[in-house]
Amino acid sequence: MEGTTTLSTEALPKGFQWGAVKAGIKASGKMDLAMAVAPGGATAAAMFTTNQVVAAPVTVGRNHMASTSGRVKAVLVNAGNANCATGQAGIDGCTRTCVAAAEAFGCIFDEVFPSSTGIIGVPFPAEKVIAALPDLKAALGDTPAHGELFARAIMTTDTRMKTASATVKINGVEVTIFGAAKGAGMIHPRLGPPHATMLVYIFTDIAADVAELRAAMQPAVEQSFNSISIDGDTSTNDTVLLLASGASGARLDDLSRASFTAALNQVCGKLAHAIVDDGEGVTHVVTLDITGCRSDAEAKQIAKSIAHSPLCKTAWSSADPNWGRLMAAAGYSGVQFDPAAVTVQIGSLPVYENGMRSPSFDEAETHRVMQQREYTIAMNFAQGEGVCRFLTCDLTEEYVHINADYST
Amino acid sequence: MEGTTTLSTEALPKGFQWGAVKAGIKASGKMDLAMAVAPGGATAAAMFTTNQVVAAPVTVGRNHMASTSGRVKAVLVNAGNANCATGQAGIDGCTRTCVAAAEAFGCIFDEVFPSSTGIIGVPFPAEKVIAALPDLKAALGDTPAHGELFARAIMTTDTRMKTASATVKINGVEVTIFGAAKGAGMIHPRLGPPHATMLVYIFTDIAADVAELRAAMQPAVEQSFNSISIDGDTSTNDTVLLLASGASGARLDDLSRASFTAALNQVCGKLAHAIVDDGEGVTHVVTLDITGCRSDAEAKQIAKSIAHSPLCKTAWSSADPNWGRLMAAAGYSGVQFDPAAVTVQIGSLPVYENGMRSPSFDEAETHRVMQQREYTIAMNFAQGEGVCRFLTCDLTEEYVHINADYST
Repeated sequence: MEGTTTLSTEALPKGFQWGAVKAGIKASGKMDLAMAVAPGGATAAAMFTTNQVVAAPVTVGRNHMASTSGRVKAVLVNAGNANCATGQAGIDGCTRTCVAAAEAFGCIFDEVFPSSTGIIGVPFPAEKVIAALPDLKAALGDTPAHGELFARAIMTTDTRMKTASATVKINGVEVTIFGAAKGAGMIHPRLGPPHATMLVYIFTDIAADVAELRAAMQPAVEQSFNSISIDGDTSTNDTVLLLASGASGARLDDLSRASFTAALNQVCGKLAHAIVDDGEGVTHVVTLDITGCRSDAEAKQIAKSIAHSPLCKTAWSSADPNWGRLMAAAGYSGVQFDPAAVTVQIGSLPVYENGMRSPSFDEAETHRVMQQREYTIAMNFAQGEGVCRFLTCDLTEEYVHINADYST
Repeated sequence: MEGTTTLSTEALPKGFQWGAVKAGIKASGKMDLAMAVAPGGATAAAMFTTNQVVAAPVTVGRNHMASTSGRVKAVLVNAGNANCATGQAGIDGCTRTCVAAAEAFGCIFDEVFPSSTGIIGVPFPAEKVIAALPDLKAALGDTPAHGELFARAIMTTDTRMKTASATVKINGVEVTIFGAAKGAGMIHPRLGPPHATMLVYIFTDIAADVAELRAAMQPAVEQSFNSISIDGDTSTNDTVLLLASGASGARLDDLSRASFTAALNQVCGKLAHAIVDDGEGVTHVVTLDITGCRSDAEAKQIAKSIAHSPLCKTAWSSADPNWGRLMAAAGYSGVQFDPAAVTVQIGSLPVYENGMRSPSFDEAETHRVMQQREYTIAMNFAQGEGVCRFLTCDLTEEYVHINADYST
């Protein structure tokens, strides 16, 4: 099922071109090599997976960002092969594609930012990427159709294209933020500052230096991509890249910061939601609204424990108001709390208080709330001001089916 | 499906009686109330779940063990209701059943050790338990049939009775250890020294003081029940209880310690294996043999990360030699290591070395190894002497089906 979302003209920032081609990496024969180019260059901030095992493009991309101090001219993304656990050959292959792309686009090799997503441990077909570069260059453009090409080519098990955009007036100038994301499984990003397989590219035409981009990006990522989980598996390739072309003429400064970061948070939030909503086998999207903890970190620790509990996730798949599993998962999160002080609500319905089932617990009504595709579970721990909003999903037989699909 | 295992006469230690009845707690109408009595009393050591949310019998049992300094006359176990998240009423109900049992069996109320397993958050039917005590008393006996009654009545989603026994000669006297366990889901026990829903009862007729029992029990539990995981969900009721009647006449002392602990380890190991083997929806039992870590704790941390990875577990269900998922899960375990130094074998077949797929990787042959019900995955991290053997299983559509089963 391909999504029907299409992009409107307003959605795209100035100063970028996008394109994609079929390089023969995906077995399906679909588009699998995408590029975004900033002809005038862009400042950039990136966050990478904190997994100890990282893909070659994460190693190479990190080095390029360091050596250029955050200057990016081109982003080269392939789907179908993660170029992870591919040894020195994987690093060499990734570097060769960057060198070839730099030649094709007239920049220095380390101004090319590489990304890969797909299967781990299969030798990286660098020559296929290099051979496709002339066609890729010819495919570039700055229309909505081009942005859409980019967003579609980076998909793997995704069933829908994931894009979001926002515009904001800064000193009378319209600034646009456009994001494209992919990811449906192995989704529990834990991105670190200057740190596979969620890939997110955010393009904006504001002018900003690298430190300003980083400062805006880190809290936006923390509240969005670092606060979602589909299956608790943190990938080896996760990458979020924010590129600023400066082509709008407006600058990110003390005056414009609040409105720009609000728009950036909105774009990141929409993309993070789209990733969970399109999670493998997902039939319910659940927001965990954890409050009253001693710290935000403890609130997140509890949220993750629940979001990764197979028993909670399977109960959600059948709209089973089994709140005992929520309390059990909170209880083994490692966070200390008094179970008798906790309150739990599903939707706006009370289910647990005073250490036991709420006297007004209505099982049938709670079941009906949980039959909705999307709802909130609110848990207050009555210990302090620490909070976390975490987005997650159910675990279905379809998830198992997708990930167990293997034949010799 | 009920298992066909039956107990032999030798399997049972002296000084205990067992029995079970139908008290009407399980909706199925099956046996649901079990008892073990040590008419001459027993010394005891217990380990409980480290979950912050604990069932009433865990709170009560912990208090009883403290107030009697580890003296137990009777163990009262119900299945069908976990008596967890049931508030003060749950504590009161549990205590009432202990008082009634003490009256029926002529002991003090805190010499009764209570356990519950079943659904969380449903009011505890103490009166059903109390009403069934006369029948339960009449049902007691010391034959294999009685031991089997006990082992069967504590089952919930288990498909097989789980018992193990060992005998060991100490100073020419035969000492017997007999264990009965239940548990098939919500299995990732993390038991702490003096800390739902794995329940394990181990009976022996050696004479031992409480400190000696504790010292023997903790390493045995660490290597067995604390080194298994079915779904990563740590229950609110997990309990392991070791009871020593002294009826054999042999004493646990410096001379007998090694042979007794070896036999105890063997019983615990067999029961732990039986629990994973009977895990909900399990089709493959996988031993993770993690070696070469900086510490045993880091080895266990890596093992748990893999054992809880839905992507690893679903790959095992289809015998998919997707070793990239193993490396990714090790990589996000939080343990630091050099991926290029790691080696991975499945069965005895090399799959990963030098940062990439092993040159001699044979996908078809590895797939065949993984088609066996049981096999070992060995990972060496080349950092030190830390090791962990961890027993886990695959994640199947059947697991999801069992735990998502809900209808209004």
